[in-house]
Amino acid sequence: MQPLRIGMIGLGTVGSGAARLIQHEAERMQRRAGRPIELRAVAVRDPAKPRPIEIPAERLTTDPMSVVNCDDIDLVVELIGGIEPARTIVLAALEAGKDVVTANKALLCEHGPELFRRARDRGRCIAFEAAVAGGVPIIAALGQSMAGNQTTCLEAIINGTSNFILTEMFHKDQPYAAAVAQAQALGYAEADPAMDVDGTDAAQKLTLLTQLAFGTRVSLESFPIQGIDTIELADLKYADELGYAVKLLATAKLTDGELEMHVQPTLIRRHRPLAEVDGAYNMIALRGDAVGPTWYSGQGAGQMPTASSVVADIIDVAIGRAQLTFPRLDLFEEHTPIPVQPAEKMYRRYYLRFNVDDRPHVMADITDILGRNGISLASVIQHEAPELDEAAGDEPAPVPLVIMTHRATEGNVRQARRELEELGSLRSALVCMPVSD
Amino acid sequence: MQPLRIGMIGLGTVGSGAARLIQHEAERMQRRAGRPIELRAVAVRDPAKPRPIEIPAERLTTDPMSVVNCDDIDLVVELIGGIEPARTIVLAALEAGKDVVTANKALLCEHGPELFRRARDRGRCIAFEAAVAGGVPIIAALGQSMAGNQTTCLEAIINGTSNFILTEMFHKDQPYAAAVAQAQALGYAEADPAMDVDGTDAAQKLTLLTQLAFGTRVSLESFPIQGIDTIELADLKYADELGYAVKLLATAKLTDGELEMHVQPTLIRRHRPLAEVDGAYNMIALRGDAVGPTWYSGQGAGQMPTASSVVADIIDVAIGRAQLTFPRLDLFEEHTPIPVQPAEKMYRRYYLRFNVDDRPHVMADITDILGRNGISLASVIQHEAPELDEAAGDEPAPVPLVIMTHRATEGNVRQARRELEELGSLRSALVCMPVSD
Repeated sequence: MQPLRIGMIGLGTVGSGAARLIQHEAERMQRRAGRPIELRAVAVRDPAKPRPIEIPAERLTTDPMSVVNCDDIDLVVELIGGIEPARTIVLAALEAGKDVVTANKALLCEHGPELFRRARDRGRCIAFEAAVAGGVPIIAALGQSMAGNQTTCLEAIINGTSNFILTEMFHKDQPYAAAVAQAQALGYAEADPAMDVDGTDAAQKLTLLTQLAFGTRVSLESFPIQGIDTIELADLKYADELGYAVKLLATAKLTDGELEMHVQPTLIRRHRPLAEVDGAYNMIALRGDAVGPTWYSGQGAGQMPTASSVVADIIDVAIGRAQLTFPRLDLFEEHTPIPVQPAEKMYRRYYLRFNVDDRPHVMADITDILGRNGISLASVIQHEAPELDEAAGDEPAPVPLVIMTHRATEGNVRQARRELEELGSLRSALVCMPVSD
Repeated sequence: MQPLRIGMIGLGTVGSGAARLIQHEAERMQRRAGRPIELRAVAVRDPAKPRPIEIPAERLTTDPMSVVNCDDIDLVVELIGGIEPARTIVLAALEAGKDVVTANKALLCEHGPELFRRARDRGRCIAFEAAVAGGVPIIAALGQSMAGNQTTCLEAIINGTSNFILTEMFHKDQPYAAAVAQAQALGYAEADPAMDVDGTDAAQKLTLLTQLAFGTRVSLESFPIQGIDTIELADLKYADELGYAVKLLATAKLTDGELEMHVQPTLIRRHRPLAEVDGAYNMIALRGDAVGPTWYSGQGAGQMPTASSVVADIIDVAIGRAQLTFPRLDLFEEHTPIPVQPAEKMYRRYYLRFNVDDRPHVMADITDILGRNGISLASVIQHEAPELDEAAGDEPAPVPLVIMTHRATEGNVRQARRELEELGSLRSALVCMPVSD
């Protein structure tokens, strides 16, 4: 039977993992794909570099374009990441009549429309299960299993680094910086974890998932994005006291014909599946109008989980399934544009923490401002301040005051924040996080 | 574009749900399938019966064979359930060159090899996402997303009725019988819930999933099956005290080249995803040698969740994907037979509860028997007995003694049980449940 001949661009962590499965599990691959799968060529930067996987020297090249344009290649697997030269390589591969498998979320997020148009024009397909949530088959779920449904709500923990850091902080009573260092030491965070901890990575993934789930284009500029880099341990503890976990949650929800979208540290009630996802795991909660709520969870990154999704895509191409699925994906086509809800209109419950002076009337001032902005209180925590040793010259420390509100609009909350910040009783910035209901 | 013409057999709960999606969401179906999907004929027992869904009279028939043999039908959707006449109808549909979508787990479990052989001989496909775990796309996960993996462990909560009953008992402090009545009142349990609560339903589903996941045939007779019908509230409470939830867990696990398989009420440590699945929900935890642990969860039954899976299959057939997937499924073919591990060899931790006389040396007798059988204790709960009012003639009540063991073989545990039951200090049957690690 005709083998599927693969040209791989990049042999880093995920590339080595995929190559290992293809080479070491050749019998398994052939049985599942119905034909042999061959790694014909691999483009790398430095062919001399020692690698955990053995590739015959004559199959290694430093020229990705020679792979892309080789007549003996059916499928190009792009695993170098980043925008360029990945974009040029993928476009050239499609132009040369090759199908493409990629794990490159940033590329799809920035240049998806161009790449998809090229693939459609050339009658080729792009498969990208590995681009979001590593080993969790969320692209297959959205593109195939949910086909009978209108998705109504998508809530996701899709940045494993942030989730690992929040878990470390909470379970080990560590401040943010120590948890980041721990994540770096264990390989869960890069030397510069900015894109992970500031919410950008989750937001990029959310735009891809949203386009698939709702068939509408959204840009990173159209919704609030907030990372975990300002989270304090104290808030994780207060949230726990109230019965909630704090997660970096990416949300896209149909609300009155608009899409409510945000990436924010969010309180989730304990025992709800999303609240129980710890460490570097990902979870996507997907609600459809027919199927109701569903959950998908697994490792969101790492060599073999991501390689597993790359190989699933490769087998899909070998079988011919990916070629049938691709034209039917609601991605980068605008058949039903849905406006993104203006942030001011978002209507949610909020967690608020104030550090206030321990003196009369502070609580009255705060609750007065909240009340005048239509924000009512669901619960309040204020613990007694530690006793002062005035002989030792102790100054009264600011007292933390934690308030859970009933549902209010983001517009009202923002107005209240402005008024509260002018109040003069706040001893540090107000902490404000939404609650997922 | 050529429509996909459907003949539906059965218009009960799931059938009405699927028909509603096909008829009321025709535009959505066409967009996702790339071609119109038409409900051409529906076979029912009583065409005059009032239904929540309107089917034109000329499309209703009482003769399923006329649907199966009609030249204007491309796909037969079998939704009557049970063995006969479903088996005859499906065989005839395949013989007549139709593809088949079915939600009939019992039929596949009993006659899968025959049906699959017929489909393969005739070059047709059978799609059956709805046969296991309702709206959870576990067949797609196993047949497609896990294709790069050797599955190493499958643990599943796949009987929603049992899970609902266990949840009701625990959260509402109800005995078993009251929870069953509640499940019946809410439609989660049938008038005769025997197949659900005795483990048979979960075991049938497990054999299907095991064959897909491990590519080996297993029979219902080859592994222990135990239901929840002897579970007492007290055991749920003791398990909770120890930090565990009790779930009806279906397990298939690769252990030293053998398949460890069982369906049993099982202790699962709190906060593990399977322990947190409450009510009528299902969850399948799937571990692959590349992807690591993954979880899939959603409603395991009910009209629209199951209809969602039926419609996903219909769209798969319309696109042509199901026809490519079917020949590649590791189902009812025996390429890698794996022996089922003899029950005696299973090596697990156990929860044991004894009701014993409150007199000297009972604990010594019990722990002596356990020790001589190589079973060591991990933890023990024995609460102080209530004070007796001897003046009122109170007899000493039997005292519950709960023991969690370290890992031991089922063979040793069975031998210990026999010896314990001969001991004479036990005032009721010994309760014994395994622990999932």
